Amino acid sequence: MTVRESELIDKIARALRLRRAPSLDVRLGVGDDAALFRPRASREIILTCDWFLEGTHFLRKTHPPDSVGWKCLARALSDIAAMGGVPRCFLLSLALPDTHTGRWLDEFLAGLGRASRKFRLVLAGGDTTRRREICVNATVVGDVETGRAVTRSGASPGDLVYVSGRLGAAELGLEVLRRSRGPGHRNDSARRKHLYPEPRLALGRWMAEKRLASSMMDLSDGLSSDLLRLCAASGVGACLEGATIPCLRTSDIARKYGLDPFKLALHGGDDYELLFTVSLRKARLLPRAFQGIPLTLIGKITKQSELVLRDENGREQLLAAGGWDPFRKTGA
Amino acid sequence: MTVRESELIDKIARALRLRRAPSLDVRLGVGDDAALFRPRASREIILTCDWFLEGTHFLRKTHPPDSVGWKCLARALSDIAAMGGVPRCFLLSLALPDTHTGRWLDEFLAGLGRASRKFRLVLAGGDTTRRREICVNATVVGDVETGRAVTRSGASPGDLVYVSGRLGAAELGLEVLRRSRGPGHRNDSARRKHLYPEPRLALGRWMAEKRLASSMMDLSDGLSSDLLRLCAASGVGACLEGATIPCLRTSDIARKYGLDPFKLALHGGDDYELLFTVSLRKARLLPRAFQGIPLTLIGKITKQSELVLRDENGREQLLAAGGWDPFRKTGA
Repeated sequence: MTVRESELIDKIARALRLRRAPSLDVRLGVGDDAALFRPRASREIILTCDWFLEGTHFLRKTHPPDSVGWKCLARALSDIAAMGGVPRCFLLSLALPDTHTGRWLDEFLAGLGRASRKFRLVLAGGDTTRRREICVNATVVGDVETGRAVTRSGASPGDLVYVSGRLGAAELGLEVLRRSRGPGHRNDSARRKHLYPEPRLALGRWMAEKRLASSMMDLSDGLSSDLLRLCAASGVGACLEGATIPCLRTSDIARKYGLDPFKLALHGGDDYELLFTVSLRKARLLPRAFQGIPLTLIGKITKQSELVLRDENGREQLLAAGGWDPFRKTGA
Repeated sequence: MTVRESELIDKIARALRLRRAPSLDVRLGVGDDAALFRPRASREIILTCDWFLEGTHFLRKTHPPDSVGWKCLARALSDIAAMGGVPRCFLLSLALPDTHTGRWLDEFLAGLGRASRKFRLVLAGGDTTRRREICVNATVVGDVETGRAVTRSGASPGDLVYVSGRLGAAELGLEVLRRSRGPGHRNDSARRKHLYPEPRLALGRWMAEKRLASSMMDLSDGLSSDLLRLCAASGVGACLEGATIPCLRTSDIARKYGLDPFKLALHGGDDYELLFTVSLRKARLLPRAFQGIPLTLIGKITKQSELVLRDENGREQLLAAGGWDPFRKTGA
């Protein structure tokens, strides 16, 4: 059954419960040439967009449609979190086959809607078209008090390096999903972390408001790759204490699949935790956890523009980027 | 040869001559988690995004890469023009095969850069990934004086309906391109209109500043489809005077291809001209042309929510949407 583009747009708008003026900020949403967003006084606008493509970021037969809907938004929201911002609205670009405009789309919109309500941002517009493969692109617009955004480039030698949460679960979840048949253990935490990641919006916002972090970014491709990016942007290096990196505790599952929890934590992608640096002076103001999410000291910023990993015995080795790079690796 | 994502981002940034703070408005651009945009006082933000996909919106072997770069931006800019806005910055999401990160990308970026300089907007960020088929999504951010944006929903019965330019050239250009072999007549105007459309930014902005239009939208899918959308948004209908619709004058080319210039004007897509309504009272303030672009009266807004086409002899017929709908038709 062939639908028309206008029917599809109506379906999306209904699923996301849109009215003509969907929020305080969005004066004009879906249904015109463009959306109108009214900026709040003394705040800067944060802009980010992310691909979410079949075959690259998800697999049609492996990933439930509501996870695709949730995650396409969560990925972009994680960038807003990394700047210390508050999400306001988003644009959804959706290309999908005729066969997927029914139940698949309903479930996709359910996941997307759940994320948009949980993180309080409204659909402001987008573009839809037909395509053999499912392609999604989400643009998220947020804001932050002028001058308070936390960038990647503010780290200085001597600053301490922290991460939120435990690392490597999403990569393990992907492996579990790849190797399992059928729906399986829905409540497996690694799997849930891969399918329904939670952007650290409250933490990011709190860090920006308290001016605690000298630099911050989200972990999307893996600690080794992302920390190198933060160091490059700041013109510094870092020394990581291997023993302190918060690996998975449920390492029995990882070992079952022949995976090393430490390597998962170092190079695993898709965790969407926050990586940030704090000056020595401010470090005492940082709690050990924020809203139940552990904040772990894992190393120190150095002058030399290289990434060093030190083990329990003080032995050091250079660490290269081992995370996800779409132009080096294939497959989701 | 495989490139890394960071090399690709560097290449894009170099081609678009980016500095760390690329403009007054964009305080932080490419290279961080997200871009920071500083809104100007008493202005609203305009947000729009557009797909530009191989096989749907362009063909790899038919469309020169610099046209793909130009047009992916021009399409989204046309939405800014339709709101009466000024473009400020854009986000570029690019997915392409390894084989296209060399010369194809260089030419694509040349076209994109030319459009970004001509229409004065800067690249603020984006996302790149590898993919077998070329996928582009452009998000454009503009602004407009608060309350001055022109929407689709303001048309009232009795208002006059106008279009800018001549209609149907882009559709003819696509036909010329499809049927010709090799590079051919580069300076053919229909072909140029299809490959390098000019968003009517100056006209749209002028209409908004002078408060002349009661409603406005851009013609992307074709007059019959787009006017029906404007009417639906305004809760009105329209009666078009067929004889007044500005068709192609170079109709000999159209006839050579068995195409009717009138039908091209009614249903042809991709023209990116402006369609707008003006109250009877304000119509006398409207010039016959703006910066050399003709502004043509083609009909009137009516109460009945239908689209009527009247011929020279006063005979009327109902007009259905005959333009481009990605969920009804296939191909570029």
